[in-house]
Amino acid sequence: MRIVVPAGGIGGARFLRGLKTTLGIGADHDDGKTTITVIGNTGDDITLFGLRICPDLDTVMYTLGGGINESQGWGRTDETFVVKEELAAYGMQPTWFGLGDRDVATHIVRAQMMAAGYPLSAVTEALCDRWRPGVRLLPMTDDRVETHVLIDDENGRRAIHFQEWWVRHRAAIPAVRIIGVGAADAEPAPGVLEAIHEADAVLLPPSNPVVSIGSILSVPGIREALTATTVVGVSPIIGGAPVRGMADACLSAIGVETSARAVAEHYGPELLDGWLVDEADDGAHVAGIEIRSRPLYMKDTESTAAIARAALDFALELK
Amino acid sequence: MRIVVPAGGIGGARFLRGLKTTLGIGADHDDGKTTITVIGNTGDDITLFGLRICPDLDTVMYTLGGGINESQGWGRTDETFVVKEELAAYGMQPTWFGLGDRDVATHIVRAQMMAAGYPLSAVTEALCDRWRPGVRLLPMTDDRVETHVLIDDENGRRAIHFQEWWVRHRAAIPAVRIIGVGAADAEPAPGVLEAIHEADAVLLPPSNPVVSIGSILSVPGIREALTATTVVGVSPIIGGAPVRGMADACLSAIGVETSARAVAEHYGPELLDGWLVDEADDGAHVAGIEIRSRPLYMKDTESTAAIARAALDFALELK
Repeated sequence: MRIVVPAGGIGGARFLRGLKTTLGIGADHDDGKTTITVIGNTGDDITLFGLRICPDLDTVMYTLGGGINESQGWGRTDETFVVKEELAAYGMQPTWFGLGDRDVATHIVRAQMMAAGYPLSAVTEALCDRWRPGVRLLPMTDDRVETHVLIDDENGRRAIHFQEWWVRHRAAIPAVRIIGVGAADAEPAPGVLEAIHEADAVLLPPSNPVVSIGSILSVPGIREALTATTVVGVSPIIGGAPVRGMADACLSAIGVETSARAVAEHYGPELLDGWLVDEADDGAHVAGIEIRSRPLYMKDTESTAAIARAALDFALELK
Repeated sequence: MRIVVPAGGIGGARFLRGLKTTLGIGADHDDGKTTITVIGNTGDDITLFGLRICPDLDTVMYTLGGGINESQGWGRTDETFVVKEELAAYGMQPTWFGLGDRDVATHIVRAQMMAAGYPLSAVTEALCDRWRPGVRLLPMTDDRVETHVLIDDENGRRAIHFQEWWVRHRAAIPAVRIIGVGAADAEPAPGVLEAIHEADAVLLPPSNPVVSIGSILSVPGIREALTATTVVGVSPIIGGAPVRGMADACLSAIGVETSARAVAEHYGPELLDGWLVDEADDGAHVAGIEIRSRPLYMKDTESTAAIARAALDFALELK
């Protein structure tokens, strides 16, 4: 069976861990029976201090590879912050990015491989040689796509990098618009379209519909490929609020209500075949999309595995 | 008074600390009375993992700025090695270089400034804004000069970077030749020749005569400038052995005996006006060079300050 999961960071990574659990997949991404191909969001990527940082790819890699800081959901376990403190002592900006020492090594490897001419997809594969996440992790594109956020505050109207808005300002400054710089000219990374075409099921995890899934869908060719296959999504909104993170601030920016129904409508029936909502949102209806409800809180690996299983079964039924 | 000190790493840095002590110089490099300009060796510099590493400049900066690992003589105090361990976990080579986390931050700042187009001299000045070493620290050149070592072992004759020979092989493979790659085309960094021309005294600390002082002298223009001024050197050889380090392996490579006398002869009377040797080498004679003896072990800051004072007084007398 071939499953494709377009994924952002924390929510996507945890959903994937549940999916691997329910399918009995270990560290090997090709056990001859089931292959999970992850199309990772790279819109959050940023270059800081000459290091190339891919937060979502790393969160998936660390989570599935056993290196994640569990309570935090991102970054490495047993992390230290010596390099960050020293950079601050030199007066280097920015100081708001949580750059851990273990994490720095990942970015050094990536920056060095990219400087040597390797595309991000090859770099990601090399990093995964160490982490063995049990999935085939592909970046959505090898081209540079960066999510910027147009804000309007006392300093005037300006676009800042998504990370600055999200991490530094905690998405507290209203976003006028969210811009995928470079998206229009980007191409899907090698293997992305093929994986979608060959997929038995495509599952959208409860990732941010705007800056994670939306960013992936903004790469020309990916949305089109997905409309031709069976896609089931797991709502990231429960009872009118994001399960985690600040997706509501992103949805507002694109004029979409923060509700399970509105997100499904935003994805639309061409893309989505099925939509899994929480019991709290039972009764949601969207023309052309089959909706089912069940508990959607990913409390632990067991409950997450059950959610992933429900989404997969739903997709296989709809196929 | 204006003093110029061409310096390598540990020996040079400790001598400089003694010189500052005897002159009562603190963190400010221009107190209106005395200025020490250090011409730092950059032949040991190496690019690893995309980071630009300048071991000798950093040893001087950390030692005089209060950040050095005292017992080791190089690297930062309270150092950790998380980044190095993680790079090794990714299979990155080399693993033999002692790259500490605090140190990594220095190299990240340097690499980023250099990538932005700043010359090494400007980068060094920026780094010293934090460390306030109390000296004006200039690299010998802004051009890339790298010391390579021609070796001949069971793998055949080949040139390796000085750091690989020194750190990885502990200089245990005999050096056939020591090569200053890029030296012939290098220019002294801004301020180097001016500082020598205006100097009341030039002091050669007990740095390695081949790969530290020799490297500095290999930059066209520096030796010529030094021959026109009063230069007093402190012998790095006591009783036929290097005070510290493996200078004998370097001296052998250039056919110079490991003795205080032979090193003075190697520098020659055109360059050297005075040569301070240890009491163990009392009686050494070199035509055209005035020789004095005194205890030369830099046991602590006090004894080092006395050596620096003796060298300075010697130079002022010879002037």
